[in-house]
Amino acid sequence: MRKFTTGVVCGALLSIAAAVPAADPAPEPVTAARLAAGTSDTAGWVMYGGNYENTRFSPLDDVNRDSVAGLAPAWLFQTGIPGQLSGAPIVVDGVVYLTATYNNLFALDAATGEPLWHYEHQMPSDLRICCGPVNRGVAVAGEHLFMATLDARLIAFERATGKVVWNVAMDDYKAGYSATSAPVVIGDLVISGIAGGEYGARGFVDAYDIKTGERRWRVWTVPAAGEAGAETWAGDSWKTGGGPSWVAGTYDAKTGLLFWPTGNPSPDWNGDSRLGDNLYTNSVLAIEPATGKLEWHFQFTPHDVWDYDATNNLVVADIDLDGQSRHVVLQPNRNGYVYVLDAATGEFLKGTQYTDRVNWAKGLDAKGRPILNPGYEPVPGGHKEFVCPGNVGGNNGSFTWAWSPATHLMYVPSIESCAKMVKEEIVFVHGQPFWGGGPGETEGETGKAYGRLVAIDPASGEIAWKYRDDYPMVGGALATAGGVVFAGNQEGYALAFDDKSGKLLWKFQTGSAIRGQPVTWKQDGRQYVAFTSGGGGLAVTIVGEPPITTLGSTLVVFALPQ
Amino acid sequence: MRKFTTGVVCGALLSIAAAVPAADPAPEPVTAARLAAGTSDTAGWVMYGGNYENTRFSPLDDVNRDSVAGLAPAWLFQTGIPGQLSGAPIVVDGVVYLTATYNNLFALDAATGEPLWHYEHQMPSDLRICCGPVNRGVAVAGEHLFMATLDARLIAFERATGKVVWNVAMDDYKAGYSATSAPVVIGDLVISGIAGGEYGARGFVDAYDIKTGERRWRVWTVPAAGEAGAETWAGDSWKTGGGPSWVAGTYDAKTGLLFWPTGNPSPDWNGDSRLGDNLYTNSVLAIEPATGKLEWHFQFTPHDVWDYDATNNLVVADIDLDGQSRHVVLQPNRNGYVYVLDAATGEFLKGTQYTDRVNWAKGLDAKGRPILNPGYEPVPGGHKEFVCPGNVGGNNGSFTWAWSPATHLMYVPSIESCAKMVKEEIVFVHGQPFWGGGPGETEGETGKAYGRLVAIDPASGEIAWKYRDDYPMVGGALATAGGVVFAGNQEGYALAFDDKSGKLLWKFQTGSAIRGQPVTWKQDGRQYVAFTSGGGGLAVTIVGEPPITTLGSTLVVFALPQ
Repeated sequence: MRKFTTGVVCGALLSIAAAVPAADPAPEPVTAARLAAGTSDTAGWVMYGGNYENTRFSPLDDVNRDSVAGLAPAWLFQTGIPGQLSGAPIVVDGVVYLTATYNNLFALDAATGEPLWHYEHQMPSDLRICCGPVNRGVAVAGEHLFMATLDARLIAFERATGKVVWNVAMDDYKAGYSATSAPVVIGDLVISGIAGGEYGARGFVDAYDIKTGERRWRVWTVPAAGEAGAETWAGDSWKTGGGPSWVAGTYDAKTGLLFWPTGNPSPDWNGDSRLGDNLYTNSVLAIEPATGKLEWHFQFTPHDVWDYDATNNLVVADIDLDGQSRHVVLQPNRNGYVYVLDAATGEFLKGTQYTDRVNWAKGLDAKGRPILNPGYEPVPGGHKEFVCPGNVGGNNGSFTWAWSPATHLMYVPSIESCAKMVKEEIVFVHGQPFWGGGPGETEGETGKAYGRLVAIDPASGEIAWKYRDDYPMVGGALATAGGVVFAGNQEGYALAFDDKSGKLLWKFQTGSAIRGQPVTWKQDGRQYVAFTSGGGGLAVTIVGEPPITTLGSTLVVFALPQ
Repeated sequence: MRKFTTGVVCGALLSIAAAVPAADPAPEPVTAARLAAGTSDTAGWVMYGGNYENTRFSPLDDVNRDSVAGLAPAWLFQTGIPGQLSGAPIVVDGVVYLTATYNNLFALDAATGEPLWHYEHQMPSDLRICCGPVNRGVAVAGEHLFMATLDARLIAFERATGKVVWNVAMDDYKAGYSATSAPVVIGDLVISGIAGGEYGARGFVDAYDIKTGERRWRVWTVPAAGEAGAETWAGDSWKTGGGPSWVAGTYDAKTGLLFWPTGNPSPDWNGDSRLGDNLYTNSVLAIEPATGKLEWHFQFTPHDVWDYDATNNLVVADIDLDGQSRHVVLQPNRNGYVYVLDAATGEFLKGTQYTDRVNWAKGLDAKGRPILNPGYEPVPGGHKEFVCPGNVGGNNGSFTWAWSPATHLMYVPSIESCAKMVKEEIVFVHGQPFWGGGPGETEGETGKAYGRLVAIDPASGEIAWKYRDDYPMVGGALATAGGVVFAGNQEGYALAFDDKSGKLLWKFQTGSAIRGQPVTWKQDGRQYVAFTSGGGGLAVTIVGEPPITTLGSTLVVFALPQ
């Protein structure tokens, strides 16, 4: 008889409270070495991106080009909370830790799917949630899990029981602060970004002591008056300048740097009050993780008025560029360009278009700065032409992409959708939306929006192959040494592609749109591939397409027949 | 590109409205012969019980004792409406028709799981729902589907589009009337039972013209003053006497009779105001379907004060009884006894205990009337001892059982739970609960309740085998010529048993409790077995066990690997 244990904050949903069987041993602590091993330790999936480099690549190859067609569900878990399942579960010591909307956190037996415990976070009723009550996952270290919450708290849990160890406020949710992404653990620090740019909340990246929850440093993504970079903001506009950090950062052991991407300046679509480049919005920040010292930055879209958050996942990789091996940071940006930066210095090495259509800029200059296409800024009443990409992408930080060191290709799910962006007058009100416009009319309504899975060679800028889907692809990707790339679509299909040719090798109907990040691990000799199935959320709304399937709440864990 | 079509009453849940592709041909009408063929036509599953005899037996044997271990999901569908999925989908011409709570009706491609259309019924806000917003499925005939609703309406739909053809009130939902079960089509009539006994609403079985929705007859389950049987009710108590008919009836072409089981008298636990046997509550009614004429009746629990609804599924079968072949009606009753009745006359032939514990009666007399165990009636404040079975079973009409003509065994999921039943004073108030007591303390709280799948030989009364589950088994059963019996449990496992030995051959974790009725069909050379996974509801509550897993909303369709 299996009894579910609820965490300290019991929800109405699951009212069962029973002791964890006494026989359950305390889990083996997750060491720094184990986190550093990432996906090379195939027994689990220990962080959001699989490894610090954020590649979402697994060396597992039991499920491969030849065998993938046989993949079928081994077990299912239903959270019972229909809505957007947009995270990546992590898998540690035979336990899956899955988050659902509203910071519901579940621990499941990774072999059977049987629930072990459930934590439901108690929320204030006046949350500021711009973009759905999503959560993208937890971090693990030692015997603990870490989850950031919609009410801007950071919580540490006992892995074995779901019991809260500490629970601290990162900042004031009433100002618009909210956290949706998985934290990152480096050494004795748990590091989290924050959302809130849609409310004019000034962004930051925070580091907390994993044992006590005490804050050890904060990096503001927007400098204060008098600090370096403040000159890129007119007047006091930096105070309400946004620059959220709502996607997990990427750590590079080689340079010792933590790379964190930042979002758009506020107000989003009206830059009149914030003349200047608006550093460090739409940038990557290279941070010394022990101290929070900013080592370098690179800004993708200066003085953004298109809502081109640069919060797309960053990947650290080694590529051959013009005959030289380079240690780089890669990012397919929401603005339609894919960027190659030197990991040590932030130097712009290469940038090329990867979406089918770009018209807001004519290209990038030698420093990587966009060459604007005059007249494609948002205007009052809405632009007369569609501006491409639309504000949600290209790729979008709310879903991942994968890098394969085997093929040296980036596998990027993307949104092909343009919008007639609108500029509006706006006055800042504390804790209220601070947009100054909006996406306006979107292509979704015209039926012209669609999706891509794009295989990009960042060294040449060439597209190796493209898969076209009828709807924007807003679920993440996973690449494996089996020569298979996994992704999902809004019609509910889990998909597998040949990583070299782009050939569709397998599909499975999961019953709701796929919005989450697939992961893989091997346990008791069997490779598992897990997809969350549950659609919805802002990205789908803005591209103008309604949800294709019903709301979902299921973790589908696939394996080959035994 | 697949677009979902919503029905005439569009819900907020799915706001997509698109035309059904013009290429879709009108479906082939479902003829009377096709309905009469039932499960012998393995291309579909055309009614709740699979066939008119309600056996839930399929001659399919691709999935069999040897192969069943390889069964894995072929596709999933998530309704997005978490809660009790307690129906049986029907499958016609490659389309699955599935109902979810609150009369949501979905049409799905049976090969891919892709949704075709969705109808969401608009409900008044003051519904009387004693036992959850459940629905058990639809009936089909010609080009139409028929669904009975929680607000006591009966609706006909175009199969191809979900468009409403007619929509009629069966009775006044404000009096407590509510319909939860699949209707039965016989000839040009669609026949439906009704719930409402918990509110003292007088039960009936209604027949409507399939073309117009016009009512053709009504059989009251409680006779009015002056009618035969009225003498079994003291005073005016028949007016609020209950006797609901909330489970689909069973048709027997051989005798030409429609058998409909009825529920308990009202008030449930206090019989003082309704002295007498309280016909035709807790009975089976044999009805001439063309006219509504009552041919015979048999009452299982006269003057019930234990809430022993006799609404368990009735099956028509031929068995050898004392050396004679007999055409019989079988029922495992909520009161702990399994009954064998002559189908033509209602004569009691045999009755034996099938639950582990019975103490409310000492046995059945030669006519099948229970020999009461004095002192086991409910008392004010609650009985000092547990009364067995508890009020929800034994078997319970809210889930099915299966009869195999191959093994001549009944496969009966059941609840092993007792209760310290309470009698209370009660005054009738129109449209309000009229219970006069309740189950009181249940064994669930003591951890003594559990579940069974019992294989019963009705001819001998012997138990061929019993499977024990940690929780009451409140999902239905399916038997096949493959020698496999399917059932599900509250821990989320779909289960398959050897029909002769009871050996567990296969299990699959579906992620939520199984409360629905499994069905099977064969399409394009492949046998499918479908389970709904989504728990909750009154039965689980009353047995005292909380739900084991989270709420679910998934149809899981299994098949062998291709």
